Amino acid sequence: MDLAQFSEENFITFLKEQFIPKDPVIGIGDDCAVFPYTKDTSLLVTTDALVEGVHFLKEEIPPEDLGYKTLAVNVSDIAAMGGEPKYAFLSIALPKTIDPLWVQSFIKGFKEACAHWAIQLLGGDTVGSKRDIFINLTLIGIADTKTIKYRSSAENGDIICVTNTLGDSGGGLKVILDKRVRSEDSEQLIDAHFRPQVDPKMGIWLASQKGVHAMMDVSDGLDCDLTRMIKSSKMGAIIDMDKLPLSNSLTQICLKEGWDPIKLALTGGEDYCLLFTISPDYFKEIKASFQKLFGMSLFNVGEIQNFSNEIIYRKNGKVVETNFSNFNHF
Amino acid sequence: MDLAQFSEENFITFLKEQFIPKDPVIGIGDDCAVFPYTKDTSLLVTTDALVEGVHFLKEEIPPEDLGYKTLAVNVSDIAAMGGEPKYAFLSIALPKTIDPLWVQSFIKGFKEACAHWAIQLLGGDTVGSKRDIFINLTLIGIADTKTIKYRSSAENGDIICVTNTLGDSGGGLKVILDKRVRSEDSEQLIDAHFRPQVDPKMGIWLASQKGVHAMMDVSDGLDCDLTRMIKSSKMGAIIDMDKLPLSNSLTQICLKEGWDPIKLALTGGEDYCLLFTISPDYFKEIKASFQKLFGMSLFNVGEIQNFSNEIIYRKNGKVVETNFSNFNHF
Repeated sequence: MDLAQFSEENFITFLKEQFIPKDPVIGIGDDCAVFPYTKDTSLLVTTDALVEGVHFLKEEIPPEDLGYKTLAVNVSDIAAMGGEPKYAFLSIALPKTIDPLWVQSFIKGFKEACAHWAIQLLGGDTVGSKRDIFINLTLIGIADTKTIKYRSSAENGDIICVTNTLGDSGGGLKVILDKRVRSEDSEQLIDAHFRPQVDPKMGIWLASQKGVHAMMDVSDGLDCDLTRMIKSSKMGAIIDMDKLPLSNSLTQICLKEGWDPIKLALTGGEDYCLLFTISPDYFKEIKASFQKLFGMSLFNVGEIQNFSNEIIYRKNGKVVETNFSNFNHF
Repeated sequence: MDLAQFSEENFITFLKEQFIPKDPVIGIGDDCAVFPYTKDTSLLVTTDALVEGVHFLKEEIPPEDLGYKTLAVNVSDIAAMGGEPKYAFLSIALPKTIDPLWVQSFIKGFKEACAHWAIQLLGGDTVGSKRDIFINLTLIGIADTKTIKYRSSAENGDIICVTNTLGDSGGGLKVILDKRVRSEDSEQLIDAHFRPQVDPKMGIWLASQKGVHAMMDVSDGLDCDLTRMIKSSKMGAIIDMDKLPLSNSLTQICLKEGWDPIKLALTGGEDYCLLFTISPDYFKEIKASFQKLFGMSLFNVGEIQNFSNEIIYRKNGKVVETNFSNFNHF
């Protein structure tokens, strides 16, 4: 590990080098770990930690929404590999001073999420904390082994797609942090930030389609996550900024506040939609079926290319220089 | 939930009432959750959180030992139900100010533990923390479905056994917290506190023996954990204080410092040995086989009785009044 650059990305690389899984198990580096379950299925396991003051501000997020979101962000990881979420394990560290009503509301929101996705909470750990609240969720899902999708399978010429508008959650967070006046539009963005809409059925369906190659979820922003995908696939990518799907609410708020919606769409993070690549031969048909099945659009935002490890951004067909400071958990 | 009494025990009861697992899944309330795996086996899942300032003092425990212990305490839960530990998921939240050498040493100790128990680290989450270090480990194990042992199966007349001396870890912690002069004896206790010796083979073997009924690990002290076992089994227990196994090191330190070894043995916590009950008809034979197989003694410390929810302590055959303030994670 490079001691001078102690980032999450470096630490994960360090761990990946130290802990090499034994075939047929898939370990560190994708949205979930994978190991064999029944004859035709595998178990997917994902885990996410949420730390007060880093991933949430206790004064800003209602405890019910935090409970809901704790599960949602993990469901997104299971969905991203084409799995169905099943069993949850919740650890929560609480300071002595915590208001029991806060805890009850947190559990209420968590339970609502469990019911929404038919997930069973089977265990966890409830402990004390000196000061900050720590939450960790481990989620186990089941997937058809043959159709599990990895981030390493993007192919040259694939169309890059996302399943929802980008930047809403990041915009919502910015409204909160910058203490902007609330409006109907901003409430929509905040809702996207507090209660990510995740539908594992979409992931399962997309994973089962011929022509869909790589898949993952957008948790740290398209720029950061697509970079992970192309590095893992040993490919490059072209993103057309004009094609990035933006909600009306985000566009309105950005106009009003003078914010850059493209920057929010690419780096805002916590979109929790699916990012996948698909052979151009199948795109039209799958887009139509997806629209019919889920009542939602698939957005073509760019193309995979076989130059290595880089995203090239285009606007009106011309290459644009960018300098995004990626979201870094440390 | 009783708002006036917000303890870990109450919170777990609250969660247990809110989240009722669907058959054949076993959820909250034992050392691990259980769900079906292959035809004859089940998966066991356990998770434990360690918080700086609550479960460990960063200035006191060497990071290598903390890494080792993080895995050991979870291996103990898998062993306690008769399972073999397999896959680990590590979440760690670190403040920006963390020394990368601390992290490297932590991972070194963790890796040593993985090698010791042939466990694969398959994933996790590495995030920032504002101030304190937060560690969460989820461990998945495999067990023969027919022989899994629960804490709810103690029967009237069973002999209560533990697999190791009690109080060493608690004594070690007391040496550290009270800043006592170190000696060979105290180093042994500190070692028991930092590097719990857990052998899942013992758990697997005991679980497979006819006559062994209930089993769990001793994590919060015999008084607290046996109380959990008898409540879960709807039984009572008699413990003979004279029979509690004490190490020479603990006895020596307690003599020197004027500490009560019995109190440490019953409430010190973090012993991470096995606590199980066995039909008296099988005790002698199993004790002999255990000694032969593992080179260690089984200690008979008391008896299960069919009065409810209470431990009666005896000394020289006479009932002793006790008033232990149980270890409480909050």
